[in-house]
Amino acid sequence: MKSYEVGLMWTASLEVDFFLISSFLPVGDIRSNLKVEDPMKQSLGAKTLLFPAPVLMVGTYDQAGKPNLMNAAWGGICCSEPPCVTVSIRKSRHTYAAIVERKAFTVGIANEAHMTEADYAGIASGRNADKFAVAGLTPVRSGLVDAPYAEEFPVVLECRLLHTLEIGIHTQFIGEIVDVKADISTLSEDGLPDILKIQPLVYDTAHRGYHAVGQLLGTAFTLGKKLG
Amino acid sequence: MKSYEVGLMWTASLEVDFFLISSFLPVGDIRSNLKVEDPMKQSLGAKTLLFPAPVLMVGTYDQAGKPNLMNAAWGGICCSEPPCVTVSIRKSRHTYAAIVERKAFTVGIANEAHMTEADYAGIASGRNADKFAVAGLTPVRSGLVDAPYAEEFPVVLECRLLHTLEIGIHTQFIGEIVDVKADISTLSEDGLPDILKIQPLVYDTAHRGYHAVGQLLGTAFTLGKKLG
Repeated sequence: MKSYEVGLMWTASLEVDFFLISSFLPVGDIRSNLKVEDPMKQSLGAKTLLFPAPVLMVGTYDQAGKPNLMNAAWGGICCSEPPCVTVSIRKSRHTYAAIVERKAFTVGIANEAHMTEADYAGIASGRNADKFAVAGLTPVRSGLVDAPYAEEFPVVLECRLLHTLEIGIHTQFIGEIVDVKADISTLSEDGLPDILKIQPLVYDTAHRGYHAVGQLLGTAFTLGKKLG
Repeated sequence: MKSYEVGLMWTASLEVDFFLISSFLPVGDIRSNLKVEDPMKQSLGAKTLLFPAPVLMVGTYDQAGKPNLMNAAWGGICCSEPPCVTVSIRKSRHTYAAIVERKAFTVGIANEAHMTEADYAGIASGRNADKFAVAGLTPVRSGLVDAPYAEEFPVVLECRLLHTLEIGIHTQFIGEIVDVKADISTLSEDGLPDILKIQPLVYDTAHRGYHAVGQLLGTAFTLGKKLG
């Protein structure tokens, strides 16, 4: 099946909307003056293509109290106050039941130096493997939430479960960040971590690649001022 | 206020949990064998530090039908099936009312070539500026959802609103991705976009930097197999 066919299939239920948007705009509606297609772009269908995605190491205790770790790319910050992070996990994963039961998890930032260990955590299951032991990672007990983290990852967010949202095949867990701990060696003069010292992995959702973070190109809330 | 004081303030309500986790583990509980602190790490308090974050260009029509664009780093993929993306937006933003009213938005991937325009969209407000016009971006009318996108960004996700979740100062909007469109020039032989051709911006949540995506380091679901 070609990608445009997948696109058509996926959007079949939207035909009415399409018809309305395209054909029945009120006279004088600003939208009717807009370009309606970009010939330089190709439709790829309904896919989870977003660039970049993070590589999040989700730490939990299972029912027996055994520390476990999984690798999640579906997540990110979702609120500044209270500071919150999301991770989306399938019900079939060992981590799912752990978060539901303990109402806590940690999020470690996977880095270049531990890329193989991070990837392993996304392949094996905590049901039949002690992933910390196999990967040679050191479990540390959080004193703030009922979840462990791996000492080897340079930044860790300790989270208590705030919301659980069923979306589809993934369940989204929203964790309130109660503390962030970072390797002292990664801190810059202002006391915050330096992304080029953390060396976090950047995930490519199209080709499943782990990439490095490249050079600094500019600073937000500054560059754009020259336009207005 | 120093960061550890903020940390203490934030975690005050967790004192009971801390006490329980640290002092009253049942005899023989696996957790009691774990290391309880990592002396190489420093507590930074409850902060939105996650590496990396994306730079998402959220496209909407406002009440008058005028195309608008904002810059959001709080978001990411949250479900594979149906394919969904989140963006978190404050109620005070012009984009907030637009999504609530139109129940649709687009997500463009900000790239190196349009970094200044992307940053401008995060500074100005659509209430008193035509951001597309000021930034010299071309609004394109989606035929699938009631929202526009900027032609200049190399990848765009067209989304219909699926869920709205109030978290704190941010509201999380979950959009079902009904199509992804990508510049033909960025596609690799398999028909999917090449991240090194897209050149998406990578956002540093600690120092607000826009970074490039660096070299490919390894491939997910492959590397980790050597461990078990």
